[in-house]
Amino acid sequence: MDIERVCVVGLGLMGGSLALGLRPSSVPITVVETNRQTRAAARAVFDEVTADFGQGVGQADLVVLATPVRTILEHLAALPAARPEGCLVLDVGSTKGAIGEAMAALPAQFEAIGGHPMCGKEMAGFAAATADLFHDQTFILCRNERTTARVEAIALDLVGQIGARPLLLPAAVHDSLIAATSHLPYAVAAVLMRSVAALDDDRLWPVSATGFRDTTRLAGSDPQMMLDTLLTNRAAVLDQIDHYQVHLAELRRLLLNNDEAALAAWLAEGQRQYVEYRRKKSEA
Amino acid sequence: MDIERVCVVGLGLMGGSLALGLRPSSVPITVVETNRQTRAAARAVFDEVTADFGQGVGQADLVVLATPVRTILEHLAALPAARPEGCLVLDVGSTKGAIGEAMAALPAQFEAIGGHPMCGKEMAGFAAATADLFHDQTFILCRNERTTARVEAIALDLVGQIGARPLLLPAAVHDSLIAATSHLPYAVAAVLMRSVAALDDDRLWPVSATGFRDTTRLAGSDPQMMLDTLLTNRAAVLDQIDHYQVHLAELRRLLLNNDEAALAAWLAEGQRQYVEYRRKKSEA
Repeated sequence: MDIERVCVVGLGLMGGSLALGLRPSSVPITVVETNRQTRAAARAVFDEVTADFGQGVGQADLVVLATPVRTILEHLAALPAARPEGCLVLDVGSTKGAIGEAMAALPAQFEAIGGHPMCGKEMAGFAAATADLFHDQTFILCRNERTTARVEAIALDLVGQIGARPLLLPAAVHDSLIAATSHLPYAVAAVLMRSVAALDDDRLWPVSATGFRDTTRLAGSDPQMMLDTLLTNRAAVLDQIDHYQVHLAELRRLLLNNDEAALAAWLAEGQRQYVEYRRKKSEA
Repeated sequence: MDIERVCVVGLGLMGGSLALGLRPSSVPITVVETNRQTRAAARAVFDEVTADFGQGVGQADLVVLATPVRTILEHLAALPAARPEGCLVLDVGSTKGAIGEAMAALPAQFEAIGGHPMCGKEMAGFAAATADLFHDQTFILCRNERTTARVEAIALDLVGQIGARPLLLPAAVHDSLIAATSHLPYAVAAVLMRSVAALDDDRLWPVSATGFRDTTRLAGSDPQMMLDTLLTNRAAVLDQIDHYQVHLAELRRLLLNNDEAALAAWLAEGQRQYVEYRRKKSEA
């Protein structure tokens, strides 16, 4: 990458994995992290580690914002004062509309592009970070009014360095698609976890199997990250929940009415859609 | 096992994996399978393969019923005519109430116990079967009026042979617990698949990631098996869906009202419950 120094702000699962994935490129890396224990762990791996946002971004010509979305918005608002001469900016936040607007509001000496790597784990934090987290995964990029050819080329270069596949999407399209494929599944998983846990019966866990584990997995996501995600994509998530409720009510009705033929067709169509989705995904 | 010959009826994922898992025990195995292609595949592995239920069960002193639940019920009703002298019977169906009643209705020369191995895959059929499917997984056993000490000991022996861990539960308890940990997750996953597929937007699949894959995985389950499962545990599944709908409506309300503090607490509690469930499961 044609970059003197990268500053990664937020050494969680995403920022940590990205910083680890960039190490083979030999670009110097500064890490900004507010958690003292995470800073101590980071010092064993990265040459510059600081708790101070201004100090960190002041050294770098590329700043990667990798905190929960609303902290990214605060950092974008703080950038002009912290880095008056401007720099390149990329983020890896889970929603892109509000971040795109905040990037567009930056002074003209900033060149900025939104990013969202489509991968995760049920465990949060730098301890779960791995250099290969993004390998073969889609990394969405969203242009805004501060996106230049230069920052886009640098972002594409970075995406390649960490082994991901770039996909350019408008921020509004990103937010509506991701509401369905990511935020709704999180909501569905979290509600399943809360609904079953509310039964308050310790006999449940020994009889639970891999199906329960996989369907609830997203409930283990970092709640602070998910709070920011849901609140900055609220309308689209509510739309998806409403849509889901209609389909859930339909299944309930078929079962309540003992409507065997219609229920059989409904279940078979769900399986067909799953097989088709997996086929399309594997061909993508 | 103190058994001359086992007959496995239904060579799907469960029956196939069980038959494969029993091979090292050297007990002779007869397979009853109605699908011609599956019989052809089975002949390469098992010494006796037939499409005829009466012929298959006539040879064996232990019959393992491994079809969808309502076919198990038909086979239990057919057993007295097919095997007038009686035999030992075990099943591996997903619900246990109706099967327990049908076993209890068998003549006294039959000794029978219900079984349910708590594992699965999103792929159905003998092609997906593996000898180690049950390894380290819970295998629930449910007694009924035809359960003798002998059939229970043989069932425990079989569970050990395939590397599973037995758990004795009353059938009614099984059905209500499994409605929450297995049938509800299936419903939740299938509704997610149908809800997102109904958006009919091929841009969804490239941006979908492992979270969507894992949360929808159960939608790929064999629909015939799941139809029988849901219809033979209808009241308990409807209870769980109703309960789930209340929790989903609560999440929707918090998001609609932009109630940040309550939403943050709700999400954090869901994560705490997930971590606690995984801890309890790993200690089980």
